[in-house]
Parts: sequence; structure tokens; C-alpha cells
Amino acid sequence: MNETVDPCREDFKYFLAIPTRWQDCDVYGHVNNVIYYSYFDTAVSGHLVTEGGLKPMESPVIGVVVETLCQFRQELNFPDIIDAGIKVVRLGTSSVSYEIGLFRQDKEEPAAFGHFVHVWIDRVSRRPMSVPDIIRKVLEPLCT
Amino acid sequence: MNETVDPCREDFKYFLAIPTRWQDCDVYGHVNNVIYYSYFDTAVSGHLVTEGGLKPMESPVIGVVVETLCQFRQELNFPDIIDAGIKVVRLGTSSVSYEIGLFRQDKEEPAAFGHFVHVWIDRVSRRPMSVPDIIRKVLEPLCT
Amino acid sequence: MNETVDPCREDFKYFLAIPTRWQDCDVYGHVNNVIYYSYFDTAVSGHLVTEGGLKPMESPVIGVVVETLCQFRQELNFPDIIDAGIKVVRLGTSSVSYEIGLFRQDKEEPAAFGHFVHVWIDRVSRRPMSVPDIIRKVLEPLCT
Amino acid sequence: MNETVDPCREDFKYFLAIPTRWQDCDVYGHVNNVIYYSYFDTAVSGHLVTEGGLKPMESPVIGVVVETLCQFRQELNFPDIIDAGIKVVRLGTSSVSYEIGLFRQDKEEPAAFGHFVHVWIDRVSRRPMSVPDIIRKVLEPLCT
Repeated sequence: MNETVDPCREDFKYFLAIPTRWQDCDVYGHVNNVIYYSYFDTAVSGHLVTEGGLKPMESPVIGVVVETLCQFRQELNFPDIIDAGIKVVRLGTSSVSYEIGLFRQDKEEPAAFGHFVHVWIDRVSRRPMSVPDIIRKVLEPLCT
Repeated sequence: MNETVDPCREDFKYFLAIPTRWQDCDVYGHVNNVIYYSYFDTAVSGHLVTEGGLKPMESPVIGVVVETLCQFRQELNFPDIIDAGIKVVRLGTSSVSYEIGLFRQDKEEPAAFGHFVHVWIDRVSRRPMSVPDIIRKVLEPLCT
Repeated sequence: MNETVDPCREDFKYFLAIPTRWQDCDVYGHVNNVIYYSYFDTAVSGHLVTEGGLKPMESPVIGVVVETLCQFRQELNFPDIIDAGIKVVRLGTSSVSYEIGLFRQDKEEPAAFGHFVHVWIDRVSRRPMSVPDIIRKVLEPLCT
Repeated sequence: MNETVDPCREDFKYFLAIPTRWQDCDVYGHVNNVIYYSYFDTAVSGHLVTEGGLKPMESPVIGVVVETLCQFRQELNFPDIIDAGIKVVRLGTSSVSYEIGLFRQDKEEPAAFGHFVHVWIDRVSRRPMSVPDIIRKVLEPLCT
């Protein structure tokens, strides 16, 4: 994926299906821009919990978000099912950069896409830490 | 369903599967109480849009909420899939009372249940109107 | 406050001003019903944190919601400022029942009102506990 | 503001105070990343409605979001009050680019900052339109 060409489904390595909710739509009758980031967040965290065994309430090291960006291409509605695709474009010592694409289940072109950067920190001191090995192991297959 | 006995899955007539999202959980590590009502809202409106052909941005008559109640029995987490079940306990001239149960997909007992009352009003004047025939037709099979 | 007469501002003991947000409004151009419970939640928890010194991430005993109800009387919009009033109608050993009223800052009649019941539990075992003394002390002045 | 130096309060032209809500915080005990965009959205739309007289349910031309970005610098909590500052860095024919900074009310350095791009479109055809004159007039004083 390159910032001048819209990504396609094949660009992503892991998908999560996210149905929209009534409350996602705003006064313009479409999913509010803020909610797209909730889909990003759910796809990234869903992968970490489901595949990486992350226990958010206990893990001594946690991933916190330092930057996100979204480009909006198509309106989404309720009810729609969104395939949220993720891949890892940089797996650093303590930071992980993802690219994300949101696709309506009946469409090939993305409704939106962007990036999402996590830094892994110590739960108590809030200082950067190495990405835990168990997490790194499930991120490697998502790398491009 | 009677207010002193918890309902079971068989008490409901229509179900919608709703996966939880990362953002649904609050500082106590469980789905925030407010979000349960979002599941209620999504189940009721999802049925109206999908089965009843309701077009929320165009319909001259719309359903607005006049009362809801929820009793919380079990904590929900991310990721979980919730089966939101609904039935109609009163189909009046302009008002519709639903009972709703939320069940974790792997559980028989409800995580929560309650009621939800819609009044159908004119989109412009905001005065009560008869429930539209097309809506009434899809609510009748949900009646107990 | 009695369930057949709408409450007024004087019925409540503690108020929190909550401005609405763009995202609070749904396709019908008014604040979505779910969001009213977010105002309830914010008023109750805001009081506990601000007045009672509750530290939600550390406290060994926490308040979890077991039942809420809301009756909706008026539509709210963006931007509006809501005065969320609370009082305690039952301060039990481990449970606390609040009544809550939401008032648009320029109106005397409530936009909505209802109740909210907390049970205080042990953070780890999730079993009911006595309401902590420091919390009880700030709830007493809210009792009717 | 330049993308390599964090902005300060003086960089912004219009501010809206936004108190956090209980529900804004996630399992890590801080305001969830998604919610920062809700503050962006509320500041931009709040200005348009309050100062520009935008009527979201009626206006034949509406602003829809085509890109947003946020860099997160500090954690936010409940309760906090956020001063959301905005300025306009490009006022085009149909598009408007804002820079936004979020400041905790007791802090000088930003908790987060980023950009937000609106394109104004026809409500029905969804095609780009000129920014309405009445809107342009209230955006000009926000230009740098």
C-alpha cells in the first residue's frame, strides 16, 4: 500500500468482520467519522487478544496508540458489515505500525483506510518496553 | 417473561448477533452499562430496517424511544458475541413495547434483559401517529 | 419523586453540567437514547470520583450497575448543555439506588429521568461488599 | 504549527471546552484513542453550528470528513476538561483543512493534535459544492 494508491483487500493479512450499529450513524445518516477509528481499534486489539492471548487487564506491558490516520472514501450505513483488514508495515523494538483498510462486505474498493501506531509501554511506569515475544510472534505473519 | 423470573432464549422471537468492540469496555474491564442499550437499540432498529424496510432518513413516520430499562446479570467482555433477542409484548396504536434479552453466544442464561418502548411519530410535527402498516406487519410475528 | 409525577430540579441534590457532543446525535437529528445513560453514568461516577475520592483503577471495592431505567420526555440536540441531577433514594449495605434527572440548561422540566442502581463488589472476587465508608460519607448528603 | 514541533495554545483561533465522560475511558483507565476524534468533531461542528448557523438537518450543503489524523502525546482521564482548539490552514473552494489541538485545562502542552479535512457536498447528490458563504465567513477569522 502506498499513500497515493488506494489499497485492496489483498493488501491485508488479517480480517475481522464488524457489523455496524444503529448508534454509529450521525445526523447525516451515515457512520460518523469517529466510529471508523473504533473499527480500526477493534481489529488491531481483537487480533492481539484472540491470536496473541493479550490479557488487557493483567498484562504488565500494554500497547497504547501514538498516531492514527484515516482517509474516508465511501459512506457506511446501518446495517452494513465491515471487513476490517490489517497488516504490519513496521515491527520495531517497542513500536508497531499497522496499515488498515475497511471494506463493506459487498465491495472490493475500501470505504476507508489509514494507519495506526502502537507503542508498547510498562503498565505502571508508562515507559516504552520491548514488544512482548508472544505478541511479536503473532505480528510477524502480518508483516509485509 | 415476567419481571421476577429471568428470561431464556426461547422467550424471544428474533435474534441479532452483535460482536462487542474494544471501545465497549470501560475501566473495570467489562462492557460499560451504557453499551447494553446500544445492543438493545441495534436489535430493535436492525429488525425494523432489515425486515420492515424502514428507511430512517426518509420515512415520514419514525419510532422514538420513550422508556427503556435494563437489568444487568453478567459481565460482558471483548471479544464476545452477543445474541440480542427481541419480542413484542404490546403492539398499540402508536406505541410498541419490546422485551429484550442479551445472551453471550456460549451461554444459556441472559447477561442482561429489559424493555424498550417506541412511540411512532410524524417526522416533522413530532406528534404520535399510527404504527405504519408495513412495520406492523413485521412486528406481529414477534408478538407473544 | 414518584413514578407518576415528573421530577423537577429541586428534587435533586447534586448536579453536573454535561455538554452534548456532535456524535451524540443519531439519524433523527437528536441525542440517541443510549447516550442519556452515558449522562447518568457520568453524573454518578463524576460525583464518586470528585467528591468521594474514588480511584477507579485502584479501589479494591467498585460500584457496578445492576439496573437502570430512563423515561424520555424531550429531545436533546447538539449543542446543548445538560444539567444532570442525582439523589440517593436507598443507601443499603452494598447497594445504592439513585434517581436521576436530565434538564436542558434553559428548561425547568426534565428532558428525561430515571433510576440507577449500583452494587459495590470486590474488584477481584466480584462478590458484594459493604459500600466503603468514604463513599458512604459522600452519599449521605444526597439522601432524601 | 508544523508537523515536527508540537503546537501550543496560541496556535489556535477558537476553543471549545469539552469535559470527559466516564464512558470515554477504556480498560487502560485513560480516554480511548477513538474518543479524541470525537473531541475534534465536536469542536469543528460546534463552531459551525454555533458561529456559522449551520442547521445539520436542513442545510442543502453539508461538510463531510475526508481525512483526519491525530498524534497522541498525553493520557487523558475522567474527569478532565479539554480545551479543543481549532484553526483553518486551507480554505479551498469546497474543502476546508483544520488543525486541531487538545489541551487539558490545567496544562500548556497539548495532549494531542492533528488535522481534520472537510469537503462540502450537496446533501442529496453527494457531489462537492462550494463552501456556503455563511460558513466561509466564519471560517475566515480562523485562517492563519
